[in-house]
Order: sequence, then structure tokens, then C-alpha cells
Amino acid sequence: MALTSAIKGVIPIAPTPFHPDGRVDEISLDRMSDFFSGAGIDGLTILGQLGEAPKLDHAEAVAIARRVVGRMSVPVLVGVSAPGFAAMRALAREVMDLGAAGVMIGPPNTLRTDDQVVAYYRNAAEAIGPDVPFVIQDYPLTFSVVMTPAVIRRIVTENPSCVMLKHEDWPGLDKITTLRGFEADGSMRHIAILTGNGGLFLDFEMERGADGANTGYAFPEMLVDVVRLSRAGERDAAHDLFDAHLPYLRYEQQQGPLGLAVRKYVFQKRGIFASDAQRKPAANLSAQGKAEVDYLLSRIARVDPRARVAP
Amino acid sequence: MALTSAIKGVIPIAPTPFHPDGRVDEISLDRMSDFFSGAGIDGLTILGQLGEAPKLDHAEAVAIARRVVGRMSVPVLVGVSAPGFAAMRALAREVMDLGAAGVMIGPPNTLRTDDQVVAYYRNAAEAIGPDVPFVIQDYPLTFSVVMTPAVIRRIVTENPSCVMLKHEDWPGLDKITTLRGFEADGSMRHIAILTGNGGLFLDFEMERGADGANTGYAFPEMLVDVVRLSRAGERDAAHDLFDAHLPYLRYEQQQGPLGLAVRKYVFQKRGIFASDAQRKPAANLSAQGKAEVDYLLSRIARVDPRARVAP
Amino acid sequence: MALTSAIKGVIPIAPTPFHPDGRVDEISLDRMSDFFSGAGIDGLTILGQLGEAPKLDHAEAVAIARRVVGRMSVPVLVGVSAPGFAAMRALAREVMDLGAAGVMIGPPNTLRTDDQVVAYYRNAAEAIGPDVPFVIQDYPLTFSVVMTPAVIRRIVTENPSCVMLKHEDWPGLDKITTLRGFEADGSMRHIAILTGNGGLFLDFEMERGADGANTGYAFPEMLVDVVRLSRAGERDAAHDLFDAHLPYLRYEQQQGPLGLAVRKYVFQKRGIFASDAQRKPAANLSAQGKAEVDYLLSRIARVDPRARVAP
Amino acid sequence: MALTSAIKGVIPIAPTPFHPDGRVDEISLDRMSDFFSGAGIDGLTILGQLGEAPKLDHAEAVAIARRVVGRMSVPVLVGVSAPGFAAMRALAREVMDLGAAGVMIGPPNTLRTDDQVVAYYRNAAEAIGPDVPFVIQDYPLTFSVVMTPAVIRRIVTENPSCVMLKHEDWPGLDKITTLRGFEADGSMRHIAILTGNGGLFLDFEMERGADGANTGYAFPEMLVDVVRLSRAGERDAAHDLFDAHLPYLRYEQQQGPLGLAVRKYVFQKRGIFASDAQRKPAANLSAQGKAEVDYLLSRIARVDPRARVAP
Repeated sequence: MALTSAIKGVIPIAPTPFHPDGRVDEISLDRMSDFFSGAGIDGLTILGQLGEAPKLDHAEAVAIARRVVGRMSVPVLVGVSAPGFAAMRALAREVMDLGAAGVMIGPPNTLRTDDQVVAYYRNAAEAIGPDVPFVIQDYPLTFSVVMTPAVIRRIVTENPSCVMLKHEDWPGLDKITTLRGFEADGSMRHIAILTGNGGLFLDFEMERGADGANTGYAFPEMLVDVVRLSRAGERDAAHDLFDAHLPYLRYEQQQGPLGLAVRKYVFQKRGIFASDAQRKPAANLSAQGKAEVDYLLSRIARVDPRARVAP
Repeated sequence: MALTSAIKGVIPIAPTPFHPDGRVDEISLDRMSDFFSGAGIDGLTILGQLGEAPKLDHAEAVAIARRVVGRMSVPVLVGVSAPGFAAMRALAREVMDLGAAGVMIGPPNTLRTDDQVVAYYRNAAEAIGPDVPFVIQDYPLTFSVVMTPAVIRRIVTENPSCVMLKHEDWPGLDKITTLRGFEADGSMRHIAILTGNGGLFLDFEMERGADGANTGYAFPEMLVDVVRLSRAGERDAAHDLFDAHLPYLRYEQQQGPLGLAVRKYVFQKRGIFASDAQRKPAANLSAQGKAEVDYLLSRIARVDPRARVAP
Repeated sequence: MALTSAIKGVIPIAPTPFHPDGRVDEISLDRMSDFFSGAGIDGLTILGQLGEAPKLDHAEAVAIARRVVGRMSVPVLVGVSAPGFAAMRALAREVMDLGAAGVMIGPPNTLRTDDQVVAYYRNAAEAIGPDVPFVIQDYPLTFSVVMTPAVIRRIVTENPSCVMLKHEDWPGLDKITTLRGFEADGSMRHIAILTGNGGLFLDFEMERGADGANTGYAFPEMLVDVVRLSRAGERDAAHDLFDAHLPYLRYEQQQGPLGLAVRKYVFQKRGIFASDAQRKPAANLSAQGKAEVDYLLSRIARVDPRARVAP
Repeated sequence: MALTSAIKGVIPIAPTPFHPDGRVDEISLDRMSDFFSGAGIDGLTILGQLGEAPKLDHAEAVAIARRVVGRMSVPVLVGVSAPGFAAMRALAREVMDLGAAGVMIGPPNTLRTDDQVVAYYRNAAEAIGPDVPFVIQDYPLTFSVVMTPAVIRRIVTENPSCVMLKHEDWPGLDKITTLRGFEADGSMRHIAILTGNGGLFLDFEMERGADGANTGYAFPEMLVDVVRLSRAGERDAAHDLFDAHLPYLRYEQQQGPLGLAVRKYVFQKRGIFASDAQRKPAANLSAQGKAEVDYLLSRIARVDPRARVAP
């Protein structure tokens, strides 16, 4: 079940549940896997930034991958970004052996020139091996690395095992249009483009040619519906649903650990996570913040009853 | 009409109109001043980042300030951020002589430590002179400078001429709460807090204690109404109006010259600007982008007829 | 043999030898341990940046630590900088169990404010456990994190297990003076200060109050002599020896993988390493570069015969 | 006397003398011009970073350029780096009208991709006009902008008015070799390459193909001699002289305002400047620092009597 460039739909980025004392919460992890399975998704990405991957040690990361891959029937992608290629390779090989469908690789924030970015992905692809499908994570806001469309084309062309772009440049709509233009003019083979940024531009990203969403949002059901409606050409309906969620979606998009705190709070409210604990460095959602989230959810619920969650 | 810490309400950040050949468009500048005057605002900030201030030479900046200050009856604030204190002083003294109410100062992106930030504002306040009221611009996303609440308190305490914070940290709601807490516990004197970030969190910023908005948005009338409703305690009405605009407001919030291109396009559609030209480095709003904006405005117009603009 | 704040002298930072195919070269590793043992050093730091630690996976890092600790009779410090505290803890606990004397921790390049830096070291100290002595690595040029003397004092005061500063701020002479002043005025307990930056300012750092050197240089014998002469008050002799090495020492100080390539080339010439291979991302020392190094060494050898190495 | 790509030799970067109260010291400025004229230089660059250009306002910058250009008979280059192209153009046109030979342009520290760097110089060249010869300042350590040799080739090829590279990448020796290789293989026209970085690698930069030095050092006479000896093929003599100065030259190379404080202190000692004052933000050379400089100069003076300066 290796990931290919034909993938479409919604691949949520999963958070990682912890007990208040910092241990991984395996019961919640299973509950989350089941929740996602029931939400109509097309795959799941674990161990990304949002999944607090850098806060796990190697053994913990492998244990989480084993548990999720073993429980889910959709393709599971695993974030393997690491300070060096040896650690990246070690994790990639282990999770692929466990049945992962592919891996996601973000660049270190020290890269500057076009050639450095291209060389980085060349070395990464070589390190994990040519049989491991990989996803480029293009997230300048967090990584401080800017990849032009031409650089992405170079990476795709050099590395046959590159099958997908997690697009989260910002602004980025014209980038999707340019990349799809490269495919149309024959200068780049097709890759899947799924978009991140918490879904903040998903409505228009779909219209520009994205294949779906690859992002964390506490109501993946909405992402699934918007992607479906958009692909069905039901533009107004897609925007109506998206806009109903946008005030809360925007609230989730507070950068760093606070945005994650919001999402974990809602996962707890939805009965998926037993706790909203984060590992350090962590952010707390204040009482005022929780009340703001509750208010926003109650407003969505007027339109989309799935957002009606017990207080 | 010097700015004081009692200022409240909406102070838009003004863009600068150019002719397609790059010259300042004075007719559009006058039309913009009149438009803002009619929008119920409480002040106007010119020559900020959004106003393409770094792309103007000194003489142009002074000419724009003269023209706007001379035409408007509300307080006019002028951005005087500069690579050095001599240029900052030169501009500040000239625009104050022309009748400006105060100046706005953002930090250079090379500052790192708390002491460096505090020293920067101490030197800036000394350079412009103790009689010139100034606004701290706290905008980490663009400036890469992070000011903790404690650092802001040090700046406020050291510099009697600091009267206002343009708050655009992100995330930043708890920062407002903390700063208002400093005032409540007596550890910091009162300053005005008006918020930026294109208004993306204005709904909750008001509820956390902000005094208003100090940001660019193509429909300042909405900002005025949301601030008024929020201060009147009409929470649901404030959110309803805000949420109706949010899909487009979010679209404006594409960082850098593209977000500005969106706003200038709408100013042109509204008949305020003759052209949406930017000085280099500039971004173009593609035909697809323009169609997306048109679609978003048509959706707002179902609720708020002011967004109904001729195609 | 736990590291204490009484440590003085020279603690070289060790490179890691690889075979040309990228495997760790254990024979060269042993030879390097023996070489350092014979050079009159007071300790050894392994798995730092210079040791290509980020390019190793966890198992490799532990294996190297086991081998070096088992072979040497001086205290061995181990770099445990990691993207998260779980990985840091895992490595720290393992190497301490193997007999390491302490660990070195550099900050992630995303820290900005004073409080963030202090919190980072608080969390790190908690993660590794209060029984593990640690060294602060203060290296703004590489880490982009600036720690004022007051911040270092906060870290030292909060964390009894902090025993040493690897000082490599640049410029940094006055920082040593300020920190020693904190000790003199009783506002900070004593810590060891050993200096890095490839030794570029070792001559004056000793005179400002440093306890020695904690850096990579291909001739640690020179560092040992300069530290000894300086502590004995033989100022001119210390500078004469230092100055004789400076043209080459400066050549080693080319940032990033090139500086390491220079050092590995000389280690190979000295018969310590079988190969000058680096793991990717690597730099090659060109033929021209090698000839330049040879020329520089021949010039040192006129004064210090230890620099006379077979071509 | 327009600058051309045939320029060779030593073009010092001049500091700017201030009175202790911050005013420009015109008498010292004249004395400095005369001093440089007597030092055998081939040109002079004013208003660079080292010249505290960002701390001057426009009128001050023009006044300094007028005074220096009017007094000197060698080509005078003027730094015109600015936050925007309008200010850059205004200064460039004025100083060229005053008789400057060309201008120097460094990139803003926000540029990331290859295309952004190339576009920046295209826009800059257009802004100042095709008749104004310009120098690329390639200084990643300070500007955080990395230009590969291929990017420099694109800039040179696109802009006929680009005549020189101020090379101060670090490490950078192979970059000179690569660029000279581009000329040899016909893929890039010839440009002058003069090197910066305070001269720290001048000895080998000359051997790699540099045309001279374009940097600040308190003894430009040494730079002149090293360039002359190197071009005459007197390798050992060039290195002997360079090495005698290196311990102090290295001491000058403390980044930021401290390095400038060292240089101004020596200019004061040499009787060129009346004061070592800097504008804010400034660094002070401590008493200990001054004693260290005195010691270093006394050591140079054993070999090069020009370094014997009255205490």
C-alpha cells in the first residue's frame, strides 16, 4: 500500500496524545485512530510537527507508528524529519517495515540557496532509499526555507520516489497554479498536491488544482466534505460549509504550541483524547481561551451539528 | 492634537497610491483621505509597512505626510521606522512640524535579547525627542523580533512618550490579557492597545481588552462597526458582522506584497485608487486572484451591502 | 568522575572518524583517543557539532560514547543537543551510565527572548535529571541564540547541575570579564569557563579569566601549552606560541563543513585518522586548499616542530 | 573616472568620524582623506556598514560624499544600500553628480531564493540607472543572504553596469576560484573581485585570483604591501608581513560595533580621528580592550614600525 502520486482526498495530520505526566497515551492513540477511520479520510500522517514528533525519542516514535499502522486500513504517512540523514534513515526504514505507506520530510531551517534545498532532498532520498515514497513539506512560515516552484520541479525530477507535495506556503495559491502549469506544459511529472496551513485556504486551494488536504483540523469531517463538494463542482456549498467553520479554524491557526493546545482541547471535548497535555515546551489554553473556543463551536453548530460537543 | 494613551477606536493603516509608472498619485491620496474621513475612523496611520514606506525616499514621505495631515481632521500617525536614528529623527521632526499626532516605530529585525529591544526604544525615543508621542509596533511575524509583555512594560516605563501599542503578535490574545493585568496590578501605567494583523483576531482582541483596531482592511467601516458593537457589549452582533467578512479578510491576510495587491485591487474597485500599482518589489494579483476576490466580496454583500462594489 | 565547576585546562572537541563509505571508523576512533590522552589534555568532549553528532543515529552515538569513555582516563563530556527533551534525556542517561562525566547542551536556533532561553535550560536540566552535570554551549554564530551575561547568570542560579560554560560568543572578551565580575560581586556562583571558537581568541580569553579551552584544533598540544603559559603568567611566551599557529588556526576557522574538512585532513596527515571523510552534508577540501594547509603547517614548523607532518 | 572592471589594488572601507556629541567631524574627515591619499591606495569606499551609513540621514550622507570626493584624487565608491529603491536611487544619483566613481549595494536580509537575489539586483540596477557602475557586496555573515557563484554570474550577466564584487563570503576561497573559472570558461565576463572580511583571508584570496582588498583595516599600508607583494609573486614576503599583523587584524575582526570601536581607537591613536565616538547603537572599547590593542600593536611594531603609535 505504498503511497503514489495518485493519492487524493483528506490525509489529516494527527496530534499525539499524552498523559498529564508526559507518557504517550496509547488508549487515546487507539481511539484517535478509530475516530479518523470513521471520518471518511483517505490516509493519515503521524509524527509531524503537529504530532510533537521532535519531542519523542526514537523508541517512542517507532512504537506510535507500529500502533497506528497496525490499527488503520488507510495509508499511514510518517514524518521522519531529523537533524541528520542517519536518524532519518533509521526511522524511515523501521516504519516502512511496519507497513507505513510513505514518509514526510521537511527541510532544516538553515538551508538558504536553491542548490542547498535541492541537494538536501537528493541526500534525503538517497538516505531513506529509492523504494520509500516521500512527501516534500513546503512550510516556509515554520521552517524559514523558501522553495520556488522551479526548485520543487528540480526535486521532483531528480527523485522518482517523490510522490507528493504537502503545500503550505503562504501565500501559496499561485504556486499551485504554477506547479499544475508545469505538469500541463510537460516540464514536470504529476505529483499529488495536498495542502496544509490548517486548512486556512483550502476552499481556493481546491479550485486551483490541489488534490485535497493534508493538515490538522479538529473536525476532519469538514475537510472531507469541502474536498468532496469542491471536486463535485458544488462551489457555493463548499464555501458555505468552509465559511461556517472558518472563525474557529482561524482560531486554531495560532502558531506554535497554542494552536496545538486548541486542537487538543477540542479532541478532549470530543472524547477522543483523555487529556490535552503537551510535552514541553508546551502552551496552556487559558480559561478565557477555552471559553472562546466553546463560543466558536456553538456558533458552528448552528450550521454544522457535528461541532456540537458536550462542554 | 498630540496622540495620548486615551485614544480608542479605529485607526486604519493607509496604503499609498501610485501611478502605474511609480509616481505617487496625489489625487488618489486625497480621495483616500476623504474616504477615510467619511468612514467614521478615529485616526489614520500613514507610511507604515503596508503604506510601502520603505519604498519612498525622504522627500516623498514628507510630501505625503503634508498632504494627508493637511486634509484630515482626525489625528494622523506617521510610521518613521528607519535603519538608523538620524533618519528616524529627521522624518519624525518634520512630520510633527506638519501637524502629525505621533509616530510609529517598529524594531529592526536584527534585535535579539530583551535588553537590545529595550535599548532600541530608549535610543529611538531620545532621537525623536521626548515631546513626540510614539507607538510601539509589535509585529514578530514580519520583524522577527519577539517582545514579551515584561519587555513592553520596560519600554512603557522607561519612556513617558510611549502612548500606544500596535499589537500584532500572533498568537497574541493572552498578551493583551497580561498587559491589561499589568495595568490592573499597578505595575504598568495605562497605554492604548490597538490591534493589527489585518484584523484577523479583532473580534476576540476587543473582548480581551484592546481599545480598537490599527490595521489595514479594505472595508474600514466593518472595523468601525465591530469595535463599536464590541464596546457596546453586543457580542453576537459583533461576531456576526466580523464572520461575514472573515473569508475575504483572511484572503487579504496573505503576507507581503500579495496581500497589499488584494487591498489595492479593492480600493481601485471602490473608486478610491485610480490604479492598484505597487512600487517594486511588487506582487501582481492574477486574473484568478481577482476573480476569487470578486467572489468573496459578492458573498459578503449578501449580509453587508457595503461590500457590493462594481465589477 | 563527574564534571565539576573546578575543571580547568584543555578539553578538546573531538571530530568523529568515518570510513569513506560513511561507517564510523572505530580503529581511528581508538587512535584518536590515544592521541588525545598523550597530548596532556584535561578532558575530552565528543559528539559536538564538530563531531558531526547530528549526522549520527542514536545507536551510533551511544556506541561511540561507549568506546571513547572506555578507553580514556580523563573526564569525557558528551554533546546531547537534540530537537526535543526526550531524545536528549535518552542519550544523556545512557552515556552517563557508560561513565561520561557530564553533557553539553546547545540551544535550538528558534529561541528568541531571554525567558525562552532560561526556560529551555530549565526544561533540559529537568529532562536529563539533576544528577547530570551540564555545560551551556553559548555559540551565537552557529545557533543564532544570544545569551546576555544576565541570562547565563539566571541559568546558573536556577540549575545547580550547570557547572561550566563553553564560551564561544563573538565578540566575547568582555562577556568573560562580566561573568567573572558576577562571581566577584557574589551575584553568581563560580562556574568553569572554557572557550571555543576554534581558539581564535584563546590568548586574551585566558587573560580575561577563562579556565581553559574547550575547542577543536588540530594541534591540541598548542592549546595545552598556551593555557599553561598563560596561567603561569608567561604572557609573551604564550602569545609567541599562539601567534605562530594563528595563520593556520584562522584557516581552520572557516565555518561549517569546510573548517572540519581542514581539521580532518590534518588529522589524517598526522596519522590519527585513516580518512578525512565526512558524512553528508559534507565539504571537500580542494587540492588548492590542501596545498594552502601544507604551506601554513610548514610555516608553523619553523617555530613549533610538532607542526612538521609528513606530506 | 567611472569605476570599471579593470580596477585593481586596495580600496579601503572608510569609517566615519564623529564628535563625542554625535555630529560628523569634518576636520577628521579631511584628515582621513589625506591619510588614505598618502597610503598608496587605489580608491576609497565611504558610507559602507563600517562607515555607519545606516546611522546617517540623507543630508549628512550627501555632505560626507561631497567632502571626500572633492578632496581625493582616487576613485571614490559610495555605499547606497537602502531599505528601498527610491532612497537608493536618490543617494546614488546625487553622489554620482558629485563625482563618485560608482556605488556599492548590499542585499536586504530578507532575501532567500536565488531568484529573489537576482531580481533584487536587477531592480537596483534599474533604479540607479544603467550609467552608474555598481559593486555587489556579498557578505552573508552580516546580511544573512547567500549568493552562489551561479547567482553572481546571473547578476553580472544581466547587468552590464555591475563591474565589481566585494567578496566577503566566509568561507570563500573556493568561490573566488569558481568565479575565475567562469571567466576562464567564457560563461561570465570579467569583473573585479576585491575582498573584505577585514582582510582575514587576504593572503590566500590574492593567490586565488582576487584583484585586491576592499576592506577596513587600521593599517591600510599593510594591505597595500601584501597586495603588491602577492601580485609580484613574492609569496613568503607577503605572508610574513600579513602574519605579523594577523594577531591584531584578528582582534579588529570582532563583529559589529566592537570591531569598529577597535579601529576607531587606533585611528585616534594614529592622529587621524579626534575622537573614537560612534553613533548609537555603539560599543565601547573597555580599558582592558585598549590595553590589549596596545599590546598587539607593540608586537607588530617589532616587525613593521608603522604600527608603532604613540600611546
